[in-house]
Formats: sequence, C-alpha cells, structure tokens
Amino acid sequence: MSTNRLRSLLAVNIFSLVLSAGIAAQKPQDRNTTKQIAEIRAVLDAQRDAWNRGDIEGYMQGYARSKDTIFVSGDNVTRGWETVLERYKRNYNSREKMGTLTFSDLETTLLSKDAAIVVGRWHLQRANDEPHGRFTLIFRRTKQGWKIIHDHTSSA
Amino acid sequence: MSTNRLRSLLAVNIFSLVLSAGIAAQKPQDRNTTKQIAEIRAVLDAQRDAWNRGDIEGYMQGYARSKDTIFVSGDNVTRGWETVLERYKRNYNSREKMGTLTFSDLETTLLSKDAAIVVGRWHLQRANDEPHGRFTLIFRRTKQGWKIIHDHTSSA
Repeated sequence: MSTNRLRSLLAVNIFSLVLSAGIAAQKPQDRNTTKQIAEIRAVLDAQRDAWNRGDIEGYMQGYARSKDTIFVSGDNVTRGWETVLERYKRNYNSREKMGTLTFSDLETTLLSKDAAIVVGRWHLQRANDEPHGRFTLIFRRTKQGWKIIHDHTSSA
Repeated sequence: MSTNRLRSLLAVNIFSLVLSAGIAAQKPQDRNTTKQIAEIRAVLDAQRDAWNRGDIEGYMQGYARSKDTIFVSGDNVTRGWETVLERYKRNYNSREKMGTLTFSDLETTLLSKDAAIVVGRWHLQRANDEPHGRFTLIFRRTKQGWKIIHDHTSSA
C-alpha cells in the first residue's frame, strides 16, 4: 500500500470515528426529543379524533384538568378546565357547528424536559363555512402525560 | 407563672418557630421567582416605552434576535427577528398609527428557570380608534437577558 493511500484511509477512518462518536453522543437526546414530540402529537391526534366523533369531553382530555388551564382567543381569556369545557359546549352545541377538524403545519419546540410549545393551523370543514386560523399551545408533562396548560387561538 | 400560661407560651413559641422555619425555607425560591418576574416585567416596560417614543427598533429589543423568533396573529405566522421587525415597520409606518401602547393584566408563569409565559392585554390609544386584545408571550432567558421567542397576539 502506498503512503498516500494509507494516509487517505487513515483520514477516512478518523473522520468516520469522529462522526460515529458524534452520532452516538447525540442519539439518546434525539431519541428522547423524538419520543416527546410523538407523545405530544398523539395528544393532538386524539383531540382531533374525539372532536370528529362529536365528543367534546374526549377532546378536552388534551387539556390539563386544572383551574389554571387558560384558553385565549380574540380579547377573551377563559380560565379553568371546567370553564373551557363549558365554552366549547356553548360555542359548538351541535354536530353541524363542530364540523370536521384538522390540524396541520404542526411545529413542536421543547422548552425543557417537561414543557413544549406547539404552533399550528386549525381548520373546521362545515356545511356553510370553513373557519380556520392558528394556535399556540403550551404543553406540560404531567402524571397523566403531556397536557395543554395554555391555548392561544386566533382566526383568519 | 401558671401551668396554663406556660402551655400557651410554649404553643405560641412552637407555632412561631414552625412559621419562621417555613418562611426561611421558602424564601430563596420566592426571591428568585420574584426577581425573574421583575426582569421580565422590565423587558415589557422597556418595549412600551420604546413604542411610545416611536422607536420600533427599540421595541424589537424585547424579542430574541433569532431566525426562530415567531410572531403569530390571525392566520399569519411571521418568522425571524428581521421579518418581525419589517412587519411592525410596515403595519405601523407613522407615529399616528403607533399611537400610545399600554400593557395590563400581566400574568407571568415560570415554566423552568429559563422559560416563562406571560399573558396580558394590549391597548393602542390612537386619534380615531383603540385597537386592543390579548397576547401570549413565551420568554427564554438568554445571554442577553429575558427575550420573547414566541408572540401570539389576537385582537378584540
């Protein structure tokens, strides 16, 4: 083997060693992040499914069952899980008003091991209109899993 | 001294001992929380003051100078400090449009030692109208101090 080929091989080996060390060091962190993002996504999927079978109580399982849970919309703040539930029941008091909910463009940012922001789009397909807009959700990891503690929703 | 008076005195002393131990145990945590909330409040006060002297660049110092800084309003997401600055400059291109800004009903929740949510009201006093509404801000503690990384603002 020529000195040049030996040098090349050495360089490639060192490169791949550094690379694999880097990957090995990153992986647990990445795996954890991926897992947490998947858990949060599952909460949102369950909310959408509950909504789309007309189950507002089921939808509300995504929110922390706390007096501090906050829903902000327009110029209004609704405070406390029960009060948020009542607001949804009042504003969507028929299957027609609920329509079909989809979430899209979801982006999750972990703030710490037990707090995350999700920003995304919401869209209601209904017989006569299609209300839609954006939301910012703040999730906390609780004993009951990831739950929304703060929801700021705005409309187009 | 009667046995009864002695008993009372002992009870009072034990009570005050427990109380002061409790206060001493809580204080560092509380002091820290109070300090962080005050620092965040100072950022908002500086933003309001900059706005009210017509200084949008000064106002923008409250936001993290990052490509990930997000401003959500209605159905729109504006991403990146520079783009958020441009949006403000475009929407408030005169002193009259800027009006006089006040923040009120500010509530700060610390999520961790370096992340916090602030929910509050915003109000612009202008010659011909008074736009107002609510905001949710997510602050992170950076090397440059507490900065807004995410702003979701809605209007009445």
